[in-house]
Amino acid sequence: MRSYEKDPAAIYAQSFATVRAEARLDRFDPAMQAVAIRLIHACGMIDVADRLAFSFGAAEVGRAALAAGSPVLCDCEMVAAGVIRRALPAHNDVIVTLNDPRVPGMAADLGTTRSAAAVELWRDRLAGSVVAIGNAPTALFHLLELLEQGVPAPAVILGFPVGFVGAAESKAELSARPRGAGFIALRGRRGGSAMASAAVNALAAGLPGEPT
Amino acid sequence: MRSYEKDPAAIYAQSFATVRAEARLDRFDPAMQAVAIRLIHACGMIDVADRLAFSFGAAEVGRAALAAGSPVLCDCEMVAAGVIRRALPAHNDVIVTLNDPRVPGMAADLGTTRSAAAVELWRDRLAGSVVAIGNAPTALFHLLELLEQGVPAPAVILGFPVGFVGAAESKAELSARPRGAGFIALRGRRGGSAMASAAVNALAAGLPGEPT
Repeated sequence: MRSYEKDPAAIYAQSFATVRAEARLDRFDPAMQAVAIRLIHACGMIDVADRLAFSFGAAEVGRAALAAGSPVLCDCEMVAAGVIRRALPAHNDVIVTLNDPRVPGMAADLGTTRSAAAVELWRDRLAGSVVAIGNAPTALFHLLELLEQGVPAPAVILGFPVGFVGAAESKAELSARPRGAGFIALRGRRGGSAMASAAVNALAAGLPGEPT
Repeated sequence: MRSYEKDPAAIYAQSFATVRAEARLDRFDPAMQAVAIRLIHACGMIDVADRLAFSFGAAEVGRAALAAGSPVLCDCEMVAAGVIRRALPAHNDVIVTLNDPRVPGMAADLGTTRSAAAVELWRDRLAGSVVAIGNAPTALFHLLELLEQGVPAPAVILGFPVGFVGAAESKAELSARPRGAGFIALRGRRGGSAMASAAVNALAAGLPGEPT
């Protein structure tokens, strides 16, 4: 068996040092750098730094929202499972409505996916929230439709839906017309729940060992 | 707002058609094709098909193990959260030991990470199991150490640890010397819990709408 690093602190330090050495991070403010570094760390791909779209100050806005106690609204259980609860600054609620028993009926009534219907149940919690979408393009599209209807906007939308139907398109729509919300999104087909969780964790706690 | 596809069945069909059209799948047997397609679908990256390492018949072996009721052993909660429970063929146990209260003390005693120490608690369930590693290289390394000690091997190891310290190395070690276990792994730095879950779901249920 080859030897390998077993010390958690050394693993973290070496990981983040590699990311800093290889990634182009100079276009980001410090809070956004933490987001980019955690995203890269979560997926093992340096080049996601070059494909991030974000509104001015989005990471700072997201940090402030969490510090003020805003909820985290997730499109699926995997995103919620990846949020480090002890890192949240205000015991923030982490909410997933996808498996609410009302959702299948709502999806049928609305003629859409369960992921999109689940967003309907966020209406009362959206104002000033942190939204983390790591799976379903239809959830992001539906959220943008709600904002268009005048539902109060989240502080920040972390847009990481993934795949081949609607993922790139929903993130392009978010980036072009965020409808009053701050946003951080990975352009294109890539994304996923681990990235969405990593973005939340970066807003909550910055980087391990660094002041937030 | 641009128009977008809202029909879940159409989204699935179009997604998998895109994957089949763009990916090189001809080196895989049918069970392994389902794994590759679900992996690509989970991460949005066609080229992962070209970076999969696997033992002969690994996907078939994994399917048989699940059908026979073997447990799924996951290295973190996110992997378990992504396993579609209703798709499991035998109400299989999905086990995560990372947050067992014994783990921090074991990690300190062993001088390793919590993720590696958690694998110690798999000893009695490993024989013939399906192991899904979507986060920690040290969990995969530690598992290989257990196998080297003579602990009975899993049916298949789904190796998707991610990142910059040990991920590529642990998967290279698995591929070079699987120590009696079947395996499917993504070479290099990429990986993650969504891929590990997707591999389990492919073994459990094949592709949506296709006979398993």
